[in-house]
Amino acid sequence: MKNFGENDTIVAISTPPGEGGIGIIRISGENSGIVASKLFKCAKKDLTVENFESHKVVYGKIVDEKGNVIDEALCIAMWAPNSYTKENVVEIQSHGGALVVRRILELALQNGARMAEPGEFTKRAFLNGRLDLSQAQSVMDIIKARTDASLRMAAGHLQGKFSDEIKAMRHDILEVIAHLEASIDFPEDDIEDVAKDEASAKVRNIKNRIEEMLSTFNTGRILRDGLVTAIIGKPNVGKSSLLNTLLREDRAIVTDIPGTTRDSLEEYANIGGVPLKIIDTAGIRETEDKVEQIGVEKSVSYVQKADLILALFDTSSDLTKEDEEIINLLQGKEGIVLLTKNDLSCVLDIEDLQKRLQGNFKYMQISTFNNDGIKELEQEIVNRVYSGTVKQAEGVFVNNVRQANALKEAQKYLEDCLNTIEMDMAEDFIVIDIRSAWEKLGEITGDTVDEDIIDQIFSQFCIGK
Amino acid sequence: MKNFGENDTIVAISTPPGEGGIGIIRISGENSGIVASKLFKCAKKDLTVENFESHKVVYGKIVDEKGNVIDEALCIAMWAPNSYTKENVVEIQSHGGALVVRRILELALQNGARMAEPGEFTKRAFLNGRLDLSQAQSVMDIIKARTDASLRMAAGHLQGKFSDEIKAMRHDILEVIAHLEASIDFPEDDIEDVAKDEASAKVRNIKNRIEEMLSTFNTGRILRDGLVTAIIGKPNVGKSSLLNTLLREDRAIVTDIPGTTRDSLEEYANIGGVPLKIIDTAGIRETEDKVEQIGVEKSVSYVQKADLILALFDTSSDLTKEDEEIINLLQGKEGIVLLTKNDLSCVLDIEDLQKRLQGNFKYMQISTFNNDGIKELEQEIVNRVYSGTVKQAEGVFVNNVRQANALKEAQKYLEDCLNTIEMDMAEDFIVIDIRSAWEKLGEITGDTVDEDIIDQIFSQFCIGK
Repeated sequence: MKNFGENDTIVAISTPPGEGGIGIIRISGENSGIVASKLFKCAKKDLTVENFESHKVVYGKIVDEKGNVIDEALCIAMWAPNSYTKENVVEIQSHGGALVVRRILELALQNGARMAEPGEFTKRAFLNGRLDLSQAQSVMDIIKARTDASLRMAAGHLQGKFSDEIKAMRHDILEVIAHLEASIDFPEDDIEDVAKDEASAKVRNIKNRIEEMLSTFNTGRILRDGLVTAIIGKPNVGKSSLLNTLLREDRAIVTDIPGTTRDSLEEYANIGGVPLKIIDTAGIRETEDKVEQIGVEKSVSYVQKADLILALFDTSSDLTKEDEEIINLLQGKEGIVLLTKNDLSCVLDIEDLQKRLQGNFKYMQISTFNNDGIKELEQEIVNRVYSGTVKQAEGVFVNNVRQANALKEAQKYLEDCLNTIEMDMAEDFIVIDIRSAWEKLGEITGDTVDEDIIDQIFSQFCIGK
Repeated sequence: MKNFGENDTIVAISTPPGEGGIGIIRISGENSGIVASKLFKCAKKDLTVENFESHKVVYGKIVDEKGNVIDEALCIAMWAPNSYTKENVVEIQSHGGALVVRRILELALQNGARMAEPGEFTKRAFLNGRLDLSQAQSVMDIIKARTDASLRMAAGHLQGKFSDEIKAMRHDILEVIAHLEASIDFPEDDIEDVAKDEASAKVRNIKNRIEEMLSTFNTGRILRDGLVTAIIGKPNVGKSSLLNTLLREDRAIVTDIPGTTRDSLEEYANIGGVPLKIIDTAGIRETEDKVEQIGVEKSVSYVQKADLILALFDTSSDLTKEDEEIINLLQGKEGIVLLTKNDLSCVLDIEDLQKRLQGNFKYMQISTFNNDGIKELEQEIVNRVYSGTVKQAEGVFVNNVRQANALKEAQKYLEDCLNTIEMDMAEDFIVIDIRSAWEKLGEITGDTVDEDIIDQIFSQFCIGK
């Protein structure tokens, strides 16, 4: 698995696209020093990049194929194995113009490097043993994190907190196997029953630890990908105001990310560290502004997609025909009913609403006009997300489907194993099950995983990472 | 001027906004080491940032106010005076997520740094004497460069090629002044007339050099800001095809810059190194697609704004009413008439068109269908941009209005000076004029320039530069 033949030299622009103060072009592989020496000229003329001291910043100039200086730059060589990829890495820091970084990239390509694939630097870091697969995946989670809690979780994974748990379980499994195999090899020693009892206890313990980890999956997934939230209600009920109130806090962060403008179809709100992924925000604004009939079809799809439904009803008026449609739509679902405009006098028959709307709904009063009830709503959302999670550090939360599935399968094998013990079958059979569990857990850290899966994971990375 | 009291510690995100592999947070000022030490913990625990060796890359972790690790990072200290600003600079390289770089920025702010103003790093580099004003301005020109020629020009300025010319002229002026002042101090020496003759010759020489520099202004300005180009013609004449053909080459570069999408109002084409800034590209696509009547009002404003008019007429049909409107609009102007669809049989009476369309127009045949005439058109555009420019390195092109105005004013003073000499007035008067020229030239390098102008120049920079 770790046979790493493809040590050709790769290059990519590692800073985000666009204009900024500084741009970074990163080169990794055997010949990165040679490639860089063709385009970077040290201010002290007698020193070429191949001869740079490792981890030392050197000032110089970028020179194109015709000898024209196209920028001043800093160059940092980080020689193997003390680099991100464990290969020879050269980092060029130029001014952050879109053209200048692209020109430097082109010069590196002309001088023998090839364009890096998405995630290829991190893939090499994984293949060369600097990171395990779970840590490697957390690199993209850090880049995509939208709340502090998401960031802490990703950073915990990167530090190996999650992998350490997995590794500890795999270690314990190996011990069980060793013990059982000893009893197979030396049946005369009569340790068989003792070994089985011990194995049973240990397997049960590991199974519980997996159980506990899996209990974090829902929260972990939400912290990573966001809580898909639908805000529904008739026109003018206050959806747009609620949206703006929820988005308020970290507007600056959201608008800094290209492509997430006020017109986008989804936006992220940071609710006590929970990233709320609010769907069809453009639609919300549109239906509110134009006082249009809310399309029932649209609402149906929101309700199907959402992890969380926020249904708004106006307390300052009786139920309308549109409200009735929404009530029908929500039958048997669960979510939060928000009774809006509670700064005005209450006309709505709330008991009647509760009677009509069957399902699992919590009722809360809010007014986006004077912010009444907003804190309570936010707390309710946070509680829901963390509920059922055994309290532990975010660093060990399971946060992606692949990992969760591997854990579930491992758990299944451990269960089979317990049954095999129960049925008093031979140790060989027990060992088969428990070894399968060990392999499944290894898929999480990448010790036992197919190349296809690895390729697929890294293809979701951004270029330059 | 160079009294630099404001050496508080500033911080900014220096990489472009958005998601990428690497983000850089840059801190500059007296206390940058102390600020960074609060948020960056070295992998080797006993070493704090203040004690880092200069220009050495150190691996460690970013820790928030509660002690949570939020990312792994590299940290580089570049101690004064060997840094971009000549102050203590600390650079943090984290993963390039929008939130994570913002969190690190916040931590730096919490620990005593203040948010840097746009261009403040470069402003400090200028105020501390690392760059002169013309070099500092070229930093943004590098970042904004859209063609190789623009980039070479900006890099030439950054290297000081342009400033060196200015400084050489100022040096020569000082010599003239010294000579004249000597003859004032020792009138009995009878060197007066000789001095005047010599001064006259030297001043004339400097004036010629300024003249030569100013001859590059139009080209320099276009290389920096783009040649504002209007493509006009009736619907379906081939404007959209021409646009696509011109944009063809560096589409990838253009689309990589956030905000410049196919729907934008202007796009840049790279024509032999000349950045063509084509106005209302969205409008061009719209009128072509929807076969709408071209709004005459719109065309009027294009024609007024443009440095270059490309007027298209269809040779496969007679002139239409819309063509007539365009002919009226172009009376007395100059530009290039493109006779399109020359792959079809020619129906248009071209001589008649030439008779009707008064002004300074070059006629060229093109077909975007088989690319006939496109190369010739591009060459024609390049020739126009460089025409009148005395052939010299792009590095000394005058490229902004402020510099051009300072040069013109200096030239005016030198002319006054020559007149004063001609009129045989006292040396004192000659010295006044020539000293004014010296001061004007100093505004370009920033040796003699108001703080207001400096502030105004740097306010046009991006944050983090």
